[in-house]
Amino acid sequence: MTKPAGLIEKIGEDTHPTSTTMKALVYQGQGRRAWQERPRPTLIQATDAIVRITTATICGTDLHILKGDVPSVTDGRILGHEGVGIVEEVGSAVSNFSPGDKVLISCITSCGRCDFCRKAMYSHCRDGGWILGNTVDGTQAECVRIPFADTSLYLLGPAVDEEAMVMLSDVLPTGFECGVLNGQVKPGDTVAIVGAGPIGLSALLTARLYSPAEVIMVDVDGNRLEVARSFGATQAVNSSDGKAIQAVMDLTGGNGVDVAIEAVGIPGTFDICQGIVAPGGRVANVGVHGKPVQLHLEKLWAHNVTITTRLVDTAATPMLLKMVRSGQLQPGKLVTHRFELDEVMKAYDTFGSAAKERALKVVLQNL
Amino acid sequence: MTKPAGLIEKIGEDTHPTSTTMKALVYQGQGRRAWQERPRPTLIQATDAIVRITTATICGTDLHILKGDVPSVTDGRILGHEGVGIVEEVGSAVSNFSPGDKVLISCITSCGRCDFCRKAMYSHCRDGGWILGNTVDGTQAECVRIPFADTSLYLLGPAVDEEAMVMLSDVLPTGFECGVLNGQVKPGDTVAIVGAGPIGLSALLTARLYSPAEVIMVDVDGNRLEVARSFGATQAVNSSDGKAIQAVMDLTGGNGVDVAIEAVGIPGTFDICQGIVAPGGRVANVGVHGKPVQLHLEKLWAHNVTITTRLVDTAATPMLLKMVRSGQLQPGKLVTHRFELDEVMKAYDTFGSAAKERALKVVLQNL
Amino acid sequence: MTKPAGLIEKIGEDTHPTSTTMKALVYQGQGRRAWQERPRPTLIQATDAIVRITTATICGTDLHILKGDVPSVTDGRILGHEGVGIVEEVGSAVSNFSPGDKVLISCITSCGRCDFCRKAMYSHCRDGGWILGNTVDGTQAECVRIPFADTSLYLLGPAVDEEAMVMLSDVLPTGFECGVLNGQVKPGDTVAIVGAGPIGLSALLTARLYSPAEVIMVDVDGNRLEVARSFGATQAVNSSDGKAIQAVMDLTGGNGVDVAIEAVGIPGTFDICQGIVAPGGRVANVGVHGKPVQLHLEKLWAHNVTITTRLVDTAATPMLLKMVRSGQLQPGKLVTHRFELDEVMKAYDTFGSAAKERALKVVLQNL
Amino acid sequence: MTKPAGLIEKIGEDTHPTSTTMKALVYQGQGRRAWQERPRPTLIQATDAIVRITTATICGTDLHILKGDVPSVTDGRILGHEGVGIVEEVGSAVSNFSPGDKVLISCITSCGRCDFCRKAMYSHCRDGGWILGNTVDGTQAECVRIPFADTSLYLLGPAVDEEAMVMLSDVLPTGFECGVLNGQVKPGDTVAIVGAGPIGLSALLTARLYSPAEVIMVDVDGNRLEVARSFGATQAVNSSDGKAIQAVMDLTGGNGVDVAIEAVGIPGTFDICQGIVAPGGRVANVGVHGKPVQLHLEKLWAHNVTITTRLVDTAATPMLLKMVRSGQLQPGKLVTHRFELDEVMKAYDTFGSAAKERALKVVLQNL
Repeated sequence: MTKPAGLIEKIGEDTHPTSTTMKALVYQGQGRRAWQERPRPTLIQATDAIVRITTATICGTDLHILKGDVPSVTDGRILGHEGVGIVEEVGSAVSNFSPGDKVLISCITSCGRCDFCRKAMYSHCRDGGWILGNTVDGTQAECVRIPFADTSLYLLGPAVDEEAMVMLSDVLPTGFECGVLNGQVKPGDTVAIVGAGPIGLSALLTARLYSPAEVIMVDVDGNRLEVARSFGATQAVNSSDGKAIQAVMDLTGGNGVDVAIEAVGIPGTFDICQGIVAPGGRVANVGVHGKPVQLHLEKLWAHNVTITTRLVDTAATPMLLKMVRSGQLQPGKLVTHRFELDEVMKAYDTFGSAAKERALKVVLQNL
Repeated sequence: MTKPAGLIEKIGEDTHPTSTTMKALVYQGQGRRAWQERPRPTLIQATDAIVRITTATICGTDLHILKGDVPSVTDGRILGHEGVGIVEEVGSAVSNFSPGDKVLISCITSCGRCDFCRKAMYSHCRDGGWILGNTVDGTQAECVRIPFADTSLYLLGPAVDEEAMVMLSDVLPTGFECGVLNGQVKPGDTVAIVGAGPIGLSALLTARLYSPAEVIMVDVDGNRLEVARSFGATQAVNSSDGKAIQAVMDLTGGNGVDVAIEAVGIPGTFDICQGIVAPGGRVANVGVHGKPVQLHLEKLWAHNVTITTRLVDTAATPMLLKMVRSGQLQPGKLVTHRFELDEVMKAYDTFGSAAKERALKVVLQNL
Repeated sequence: MTKPAGLIEKIGEDTHPTSTTMKALVYQGQGRRAWQERPRPTLIQATDAIVRITTATICGTDLHILKGDVPSVTDGRILGHEGVGIVEEVGSAVSNFSPGDKVLISCITSCGRCDFCRKAMYSHCRDGGWILGNTVDGTQAECVRIPFADTSLYLLGPAVDEEAMVMLSDVLPTGFECGVLNGQVKPGDTVAIVGAGPIGLSALLTARLYSPAEVIMVDVDGNRLEVARSFGATQAVNSSDGKAIQAVMDLTGGNGVDVAIEAVGIPGTFDICQGIVAPGGRVANVGVHGKPVQLHLEKLWAHNVTITTRLVDTAATPMLLKMVRSGQLQPGKLVTHRFELDEVMKAYDTFGSAAKERALKVVLQNL
Repeated sequence: MTKPAGLIEKIGEDTHPTSTTMKALVYQGQGRRAWQERPRPTLIQATDAIVRITTATICGTDLHILKGDVPSVTDGRILGHEGVGIVEEVGSAVSNFSPGDKVLISCITSCGRCDFCRKAMYSHCRDGGWILGNTVDGTQAECVRIPFADTSLYLLGPAVDEEAMVMLSDVLPTGFECGVLNGQVKPGDTVAIVGAGPIGLSALLTARLYSPAEVIMVDVDGNRLEVARSFGATQAVNSSDGKAIQAVMDLTGGNGVDVAIEAVGIPGTFDICQGIVAPGGRVANVGVHGKPVQLHLEKLWAHNVTITTRLVDTAATPMLLKMVRSGQLQPGKLVTHRFELDEVMKAYDTFGSAAKERALKVVLQNL
């Protein structure tokens, strides 16, 4: 039930008489980041919660921000939109969570009451969407303020595998919603996933929930293709020779694939997808693109194909939580490196050299 | 944006310096109702709004309550779950509405943050659902408290046809969601609607949004069948001779119907539906049933049929509002009688003798 | 029931003791066509039917063929893939039709037994698809051989409006399947149709089966926009000033449209579609494209949009037939000019100057 | 390509110069069956094929026939609607198969050209449906005539596991289409399957293609429940104490199940299903019912549930074949007993005492 209005609960402060400052990873303009002392966040809206971070991780998008590619992120912003933590305080209008609860933080903030939220398209929430570590301070810090907590956090039991769970903040729902759901993967399908990074591998792990007959993984990195095979890919195509389209067509007897999932975000990988999709098939774009692509409508107009794009809505998070709890989905396998939260500067270095370091997901711990 | 927490706005009180009491239609135990003085409602939760009723109406369910058939309704309850009005006050956590807004009240209250609400199944909201005029005081009064206002009210422009709009509180979304959407009416379908009361006629009006080739209306009341024809039914079957199944089969060349919508709530009308549904067809139950029915699985097991039930979710209300605004849907046609709000006792008498009075929807005005 | 194998029925020959030749419109290489004497077609396969044409029409694709844009069409080919006629003869394996039946000829030939046909994707039938007037002789002739007659013809009653029905050979199912179905038009939607030629107007007529709240028609031809308004478009945008995107955004309060239907087939019109689609919306391509388009994934990747392409399957033809029979769909309105079949050379001239002649569909009669 | 009409191919006869008689299992009126000499079948229609049976099996429906419960089966009928074999002869209109091909026989015959077949609802094919071993002679014989061979047989490679494949004639598509597809099983769902016989276990095997979080198996037979656990059921409920509803509600924290699959066909098991389905859930009936059931609409009318029935269409057979070939589906696990074809009388005895013999599927071999 909704709590009485008229006051902001202060329960958290008594039980956590911490200082008024904290450490956080702060963006300082193109190419610069620092691990800095910052004011500890406090409740602003009645629908807010303050969460102490116990596990966080770094996303490819954070690297884009550091390159200066995301103009909405301004100097001084605390980065990070993925995390697991403990609720410290909740605003007066928060009813689903209480201080002490262990929670998963969704990378997408949802107000729950705008037209987009009522259609479960939380990515385009009029007061939320992707704001954490973007237009408001994020999760790579000791503490974070979570707006619209009731509809942006998920309750975890006290004894969970936080490493596995933090994969549900962003990478797993992204691979699943943008790749698998939009691609309409069905039992018996032949699926190609172009890009075997954390997102592509998340698409692979979750595509298998629908039992495709074949999953062909395409990447230029032999190590990642090996990982993909160990995650259940039935075929691996190294595209570094520029002949991936032919290779996939050969593997499919010239038919092409039912679903092609683009998990890189550059014209070349989108081209592979449009070159291998069978008549009646789907191309599901997951990658973040920085420039236009050429769409071959002169061929595809009569091909009965569907092309989709999507910013993750995290509407599938409750289902993914169930699957992780039931043991049928093991996203912890994506974690290759672990650091203490205050080693985040080093963690960024490692993640920034992912190929060399054979890094997939890099986890930050503050247990 | 969310308003600052910590206070309850009192704006409404200044502009409406009304007394602390109001008049309301109160249930007084089986068979008894009264138009009584009652305390004017006040904000209880930060998510509440107080709405002054300008237009209300009476539902068949209200008659069921009066018969004592709905045990959740206790003595002293103000009845009514349909209404249009003016917002007088909003709690501190309400962000979508302000005092002075004209609003449509949904018969279903939705918290917006439970698992059912996140699936748009508001009818089963864990803190809401059908509560107005049931477990909390309702709309047949000068004023009503609306819980979870942000997700249970809809903004209307100042100059709307309130009579048409109040049909969107319950009857129109019920016919549409439970009958038309669940029945999956498609262009070219042959549809039968069993029951030509306000709900069946609402199913008829909204079925036409999907352009069925034929709509066969079935009822025992010749007057209602005539109304159905004027609303676009292509055939009318008077079932008072007990031969409706044969009549519908004859009209469909022995094939039966693609969709049979049950809009009465008794075994006999459900029997008609299961007797006329074609292989591959759908039976969409809308009626409120008081006892079990016999389902002829010995015939239907191999018939590839789908039978659905549903308590209206009012998830379609935004779409229905658009269609009324665009002039393509005219639910005001359902209104046959009008009374001042303080004539509600007389309005109940009329509605209670619907066949004799040729009544469909009876509107209460307090402009 | 299937007819006994082992003989080809010759019933037709007795009742139509016509000569062994006929007149037909023949493609003679780029830019050249002639009305010529040709051998009358005869049964080749047991699944064939011979149909005497009573009504035919000319498609924009026929003009493309004449320009030499369709390399699969070779010199000497009889053009035309649309028609209504009378069955003269059927092969021994044809069971659905008999000589004397009036039939609609589908532009898509379907074998009914390949993997694509079993998925109702007849456009990609392994022995059929679009072959009439392309890889086998077509319908702009006194007679035509129809392969796989059982699954490529539709029975019409003797007393039908042939002008209306011949629209169901191609243009109406194309607008409906590729535009309306792929665009998932729903009640309450805002739809834009870019291109008000026969295909775009077919999309308009059939979009209305799903009751969109608004249909915005975009074209450079004022006359066609007027026709669109008379067919039910709620807004018309003349795009000749190059500002169509801004105009549509203004008409939609900056939101964009739920569905954008591309019915021209050039980069400029596809650009309008991708510029006006709202988050969560669909772009349904209907136009035949001759070159690639630029797809703005740098904007659309996070826009949750769906882009579809399709060669018409004519799977919706039975439904469209029902709607025409019920009077709710009036595709005869598309017909602006009528010629005798043996005036087909003149008919091509008129259709080839469609804008000047204010021509939409040009019908050829041989009753 | 279609073969020239005008002759029936006799290729088969040369390579199999067998006698004109064969042995077959013949129904001889209620309670009686015999292994008899019968005329070898010959081609009747141009669309027929003659198939020599190499593997067959017995269905629960065959036992129903023997009890006299299926009036369409008359004395002298050869039983059986499941089988794998070698094509011996094909009619002149058969294009997908040639003598020597190893094929799977579908229990459902599909003409491919009626309205139901065009909607992939082959169960209701106007010239087919379930006719084998019902209204035409069936597969428990050395040879069988298969009508509409092109659309009723599936090509198998020469080196297949026939035991696994024969499960695709009926039991696996039945469990999948009627149970899993109609029940709309989704990743994360909680599914209950009531009945752990071959059909219920087929629903279990194929439900797992959609990765439900939990599958609760309900039966009165402890042995079958053990088998179910070994097939992946996460919970087993022995319903012999009459308390299955309570047990399932307890296992689901009082929520009930998302999908309840009825795989027995009696009122008691249907009652369990309607007692355990959660709001918003689906009841998918698979069982063959001999009498009506009571449907508790007085409770379910407001429960937002969907109840479906279906005679298997075998539209999913191509997908199931792919899954068996990919090794992800292993229906051979259902086979508990093997007999030579000429031991079919004994095989019936065993299958008729399934509980005592711990029999699931009993296979007949004639390799």
